[in-house]
Parts: sequence; C-alpha cells; structure tokens
Amino acid sequence: MRIAELSRRSGVAVPTIKFYLREGMLPPGERTRPNQAQYDDDHVRRLRLVRAMVELGGLSVAAVRDILATVDSPTDDLDALMGTVSKGLTQAPEEVDEGALDEVIALIEEMGWTCTREHPAARSLAMVYTAAREIDHPQLIAAMRQYAEASVQIARADLDYVENFTGIDRVLESVVVGTVLGDSALAALRKLAQTSESHSRYRQDDPPPE
Amino acid sequence: MRIAELSRRSGVAVPTIKFYLREGMLPPGERTRPNQAQYDDDHVRRLRLVRAMVELGGLSVAAVRDILATVDSPTDDLDALMGTVSKGLTQAPEEVDEGALDEVIALIEEMGWTCTREHPAARSLAMVYTAAREIDHPQLIAAMRQYAEASVQIARADLDYVENFTGIDRVLESVVVGTVLGDSALAALRKLAQTSESHSRYRQDDPPPE
Repeated sequence: MRIAELSRRSGVAVPTIKFYLREGMLPPGERTRPNQAQYDDDHVRRLRLVRAMVELGGLSVAAVRDILATVDSPTDDLDALMGTVSKGLTQAPEEVDEGALDEVIALIEEMGWTCTREHPAARSLAMVYTAAREIDHPQLIAAMRQYAEASVQIARADLDYVENFTGIDRVLESVVVGTVLGDSALAALRKLAQTSESHSRYRQDDPPPE
Repeated sequence: MRIAELSRRSGVAVPTIKFYLREGMLPPGERTRPNQAQYDDDHVRRLRLVRAMVELGGLSVAAVRDILATVDSPTDDLDALMGTVSKGLTQAPEEVDEGALDEVIALIEEMGWTCTREHPAARSLAMVYTAAREIDHPQLIAAMRQYAEASVQIARADLDYVENFTGIDRVLESVVVGTVLGDSALAALRKLAQTSESHSRYRQDDPPPE
C-alpha cells in the first residue's frame, strides 16, 4: 500500500508517519519509484504500536526507540519484554529517599512480590511516601497495604487481558494500551466506588434515588 | 504572623501567596499598617489546601475557587462536600458516546453502586471505552469488572484514610491529597504487582533471585 492508505488504515496522519520514518521508529517501505514506497501490514501494526506509546503513553521518542529495540531483538522471553515496556512507561525519579525506599521494599516483601529496589515503580512509590510526609499526610501511607492487595487483583486482570493477544507487536501494544488506558479507567472507577462508599457510610438513613 | 512566616510555615513562596490573595483563593490578612498584614493558623491551613489542589491536583484557579466556595458554605454534609471535591478533580469530557455511557451505567448497576450518568467519572470511563474500541482493543473493556471489584477495596481504604482527619479544611485536603497522590501510588503498585504476577505466570521454573 502507499503512504496515504497506510495513514488511513493506521489513523496516523501522513506528516506524522514521515516523522516516524525519519526518526527510525518505523522501518522504511519498499522503494518502488524514486518518490514512492510500498508499505505492508507489518507497517500498520508497528505504526499502531508507536501511536499507542506516543499518544496514549506520552513516551518520548528516545523511550519508544528503546522499547522498539527490545521488540526487534530476537527473544521469546515475554516476562523480560513486558518488564522493559512497563519500566519504559514509568517515570522513575532520579533521586529517592533511601528510607522511603526501604519502607516500599518492606511492603513488597510483605506482599511476597518479586521486585527489586531498582524497579522504577518502587522508586516512584517511594516518592509518593516522601511527598505524603512533606505535606503532613503520613496517614496515606497506612492505606498502601490495602492498595497493594487491590493491585494484585488488578494485575491479574491485566495479565489476562494481555493473554488475549499473540505476536510480539500486539502483545506489547496491549501492555502499553492496558497501562495507559487502564490507569485512566482505574482513576475513574476509584472515584465511582468512593462516591458509592461515601453514600453508604454517611447517608445510611437516606436511600439512594431511583 | 507576617507574610514571610506564612510562606515559611506553608512552604508556599511569597509571590505565589500574593497571587492567591489577589485571586481570592486566600482570605486577606488583618491589616496592621498600610503595607502590612497579619495572618493566622487558618491562613496556613487554607494555603496548604490550595497548594494541594494546585500543585498536586493540577486544578485550575476556577476549579479551586468552586471548591473553596463549597468549603466555605455552612454545611455539615460530608458526602456532598466530598462529591464536589471529587468531581472538581475529574476531567470530565464534554462529549461522550451515549452507547459507551450505557455500558458504564450497566457496570455501575452490576456493582450496586449509587452513581448517575452525570457523574464526571462515569463520563470519563465512557471515554476510555470509546478509546479502547477506536484503537482496536475492545478486550480491555472485559477487564473492567475485575477493576471495579478492586476499586471497591481501594475506596474503602480511601474513606478510612479521610476519617483520620477532622475539620472541613483538613478533610477536604485529605480528599485532594488522597486522590492525587493515591492515583500515583496505585499506578506504581499496579506495575509492581504486574511484574510479580508476570514472574509467577511465565517463570515458574526459575525461582526469583536472592
């Protein structure tokens, strides 16, 4: 297919496709004439993956390139691949308070999880602990055990979702989509559940309207 | 106290305090001389609340003003207050697909929750449904029931946390802090739980390193 059709099928504008080509985020098409190239279904799939990472995940060009390098390296280690993508999607703080990180590691051990101090999400959680203390809300940290238990349930749903897909590109795309759209969905569901829980705690004498 | 001390105690820079005063987000101090005003503990508390909403919640000046108007109206309806704040913190899309919203409402009813179609989080979740279909990932929607069940657990932890506080300002501050820092904490815990779940599903023959 020509670039116009690639654009139509992928939902990505032609100038954006050209940018991805220049940046090496999309392999070049097969040149048929000096000013024309042919693209195939692999390009459509790759473009969808890039789009998911850039538009939904807000990843930098450099981060997308790292992830694509992993995708393109010959491996069938799904666990390692998912780890790379998941870490690429986490904004890990450069510096964290080691004491806060110790607390996070204690929670990880309590949960029986297999994650190390270097996991970007562990560092990111340590930042939340530090921020909560700085603004005088250490009580938030007490909620983390319950959050962690709920997260196990969420992670199981996430892995079930990823197992719907076959082929490295589609699997990775599903990890990116699941992480980004999933975070939005969870934030919304959390608010809906809070509203309902607040009703039932503080309005017990007042049945909900029909 | 003078403005310099207010700045020190609240962690908010003097020019920012002056901006909040001009915008009516902080009540004026008691004028002691033409160019001098005295502030008290109420100012410190209010400033912390404003700071939590602006810096952590990323709320607009207009949204903060709406919330403060609710805080300042004489009421002891905690449920209504929390609803206002929680809605102020949700970016509700202007237009949503009504079919997707129907699906969200069906989930809400399945969960026995007391939320209406107008709840900003219901609209925000409908947007996620639409986005998932647009990028050809409808399978994500199947995960929502499990997400919703996990959210009930999270909401209980959230309300327990809010119950640590007394006084409308502190309670509302805790809702803002809990929502914003809580979303970051959950995103991190979700990734840690995914890593661990992925290890146990795909690496059963390979015990985790010491």
